[in-house]
Amino acid sequence: MPALVTLTTDFGLSDPFVGVMKGVILARLPEATIVDLTHGIPPQDLMAGCFWLSVSHGAFPAGTVHVAVVDPGVGTARRALVARAGGHLFVAPDNGLLGPLLHDPASELRTIAPETLQRLGLSRSATFDGRDVFAPVGAELAAGRLRLEDVGPEARPVVSSALPPARISPQKVVGVVAVIDRFGNIISNIPAAALTMAHLEAPLVCVGKQQLGLSRTYGEAGPMEYLALINSFGHVEVARASGDAASALGVISGTAVVVVETPPQGTN
Amino acid sequence: MPALVTLTTDFGLSDPFVGVMKGVILARLPEATIVDLTHGIPPQDLMAGCFWLSVSHGAFPAGTVHVAVVDPGVGTARRALVARAGGHLFVAPDNGLLGPLLHDPASELRTIAPETLQRLGLSRSATFDGRDVFAPVGAELAAGRLRLEDVGPEARPVVSSALPPARISPQKVVGVVAVIDRFGNIISNIPAAALTMAHLEAPLVCVGKQQLGLSRTYGEAGPMEYLALINSFGHVEVARASGDAASALGVISGTAVVVVETPPQGTN
Amino acid sequence: MPALVTLTTDFGLSDPFVGVMKGVILARLPEATIVDLTHGIPPQDLMAGCFWLSVSHGAFPAGTVHVAVVDPGVGTARRALVARAGGHLFVAPDNGLLGPLLHDPASELRTIAPETLQRLGLSRSATFDGRDVFAPVGAELAAGRLRLEDVGPEARPVVSSALPPARISPQKVVGVVAVIDRFGNIISNIPAAALTMAHLEAPLVCVGKQQLGLSRTYGEAGPMEYLALINSFGHVEVARASGDAASALGVISGTAVVVVETPPQGTN
Repeated sequence: MPALVTLTTDFGLSDPFVGVMKGVILARLPEATIVDLTHGIPPQDLMAGCFWLSVSHGAFPAGTVHVAVVDPGVGTARRALVARAGGHLFVAPDNGLLGPLLHDPASELRTIAPETLQRLGLSRSATFDGRDVFAPVGAELAAGRLRLEDVGPEARPVVSSALPPARISPQKVVGVVAVIDRFGNIISNIPAAALTMAHLEAPLVCVGKQQLGLSRTYGEAGPMEYLALINSFGHVEVARASGDAASALGVISGTAVVVVETPPQGTN
Repeated sequence: MPALVTLTTDFGLSDPFVGVMKGVILARLPEATIVDLTHGIPPQDLMAGCFWLSVSHGAFPAGTVHVAVVDPGVGTARRALVARAGGHLFVAPDNGLLGPLLHDPASELRTIAPETLQRLGLSRSATFDGRDVFAPVGAELAAGRLRLEDVGPEARPVVSSALPPARISPQKVVGVVAVIDRFGNIISNIPAAALTMAHLEAPLVCVGKQQLGLSRTYGEAGPMEYLALINSFGHVEVARASGDAASALGVISGTAVVVVETPPQGTN
Repeated sequence: MPALVTLTTDFGLSDPFVGVMKGVILARLPEATIVDLTHGIPPQDLMAGCFWLSVSHGAFPAGTVHVAVVDPGVGTARRALVARAGGHLFVAPDNGLLGPLLHDPASELRTIAPETLQRLGLSRSATFDGRDVFAPVGAELAAGRLRLEDVGPEARPVVSSALPPARISPQKVVGVVAVIDRFGNIISNIPAAALTMAHLEAPLVCVGKQQLGLSRTYGEAGPMEYLALINSFGHVEVARASGDAASALGVISGTAVVVVETPPQGTN
């Protein structure tokens, strides 16, 4: 099976930063298949990077190497990590980006030791670790020439998850807006399972001034109406039919999202 | 020859929707070569998707599988299709997106049967058929494990082409703006052949308030001048040298484009 | 080793122009690995294309074929070139895009002869040489079926480099802004080596109204402070911590960047 490497960054595609990372990978592993997960993470938005990585990597086959670079601390002393979780490998800075992936008790985590970089012949430029560290380490892992065990010492993440967990209490779940997608859909950090754990039978999703019951699909709302649903990644989402919910509601990343039991109708 | 799959969507690249579709394809067919035709179709713009797919797929070798997802009806009862036309395979919703490809009398068309999805182990999320239906069906077709004949019952398209044909009469062709490209060039649904069929000897292209004879290439107009030409996809196009013709002329998708015979000069 | 082809254009990704070029390459060389260096070169910005190509291609392995299309002169008599430099092959219009790559005295340059196009079965549309000339010639070179020697007659570039060299004098280097990246960082045409050649011991970088000493990495400036550094491509760059330096300073492509010796402190 060909070696598969995914890339997730906030570099955008207007400059050749991503292209250069691919050159570095292919120079070390010419037969690699490289897939862009996305390069549209808003600059330095660790929560968005963390969210998309955690809900998307599972679409790829086990053994895939995921290189993630949202890295406000490049050039500082922040550590670089390699993790194994759920049969996938991850290479990323130690800044919370790997977040919930490390909650799996079976996950393994190591810091990339300076000796490893030296052994791989890597020199760093102080401003582009994506090219100088993360891409080549990812390529060596995908090539099977570098094993997780040889990356460096076992570690615990220094920085806690960039994606906070939803807080679950009886008949109430409190979360935040994790990302706004390109259609203006408001995606929360609240997974469907949280609603079950909170014993919510008829969930009412509250964000901004909207209070919405759960629909099954976008088509259930009339034009420009708001609706809430469990989206295709299994999370609570608020959308607007043929519209941009986030702009219309003035909602941004980090805004509170609360789910409660729908009050009985007819009482007031 | 490696299996080749193209993707055409209105998902954009700022979120990982496209990356996830690629993961799904590679999980089923690790040696697939996947090419983005474009993900910049304006949201839900079926005519643009239909136009670009019909004029672009021929650049790829026969046997290519083209997965196209512009799908306002996701989650509703609209059908999913597989078509074979001109030696290529297409996977798309039944909403007019395949349009002129199905005019070829030799084309074959089948609906994707629920049993086929079941046999492939697919479960649907109600909001992301690109990942749950179109990408995996495309991968199975490209792998040669799923044959067109086994996809489901033969079908006729329920929805007519999203790209209307140009209307041809003696010395007159009436069409519409099919797409505006990123440079602001105005591309019509009028193919060069229509001008011949209408017996136009000196075609005059009319759009907005402009009336333009045909030039051969962009370089024939002075800076900021308008010009009309047969573009590289064989369609009538109106452009502005070093400028954005569509914005300047207030032209949008669907605006009328009419081509008539140039009136004799010197008479008035 | 798989044949590797990179693409650099100003086509953007909202239309299928790039996808179609990839189809043309894969139709001739199905096993090609194609990498987007970038398609975000500002329309017709030859200096930006020239800069990124010259500083980025080295990340790819020797033998890579780089196809570059920023081509205001498409449809005119401008020539098409193939060059070999530093073990890489380049295919591009003769308009200065290959710039400094041809300064290497060991570089070889040939024009693509009409007979070569004919032999390859190519017909041109007058407006899309990326698809009709550059992509297929790149594919044939990558396939090893077309050798540089057989492309056409030896040539010298008609048009001088689109990236002007920095002017070096004792204790002074005068350059220009070559590109603004997507973060608003101001990247000059001044390589680090120029500062050494000018015998600058404490360089002071002057652009707009800013005069800045050299920092090592972005993290050394407080929020919204400006800083100058040698960036990861080895060039003098002016950035703003968590901000957009170019917009804030009103700097555009071509603005002067001057580096002088920092005057002794405490004197006035």
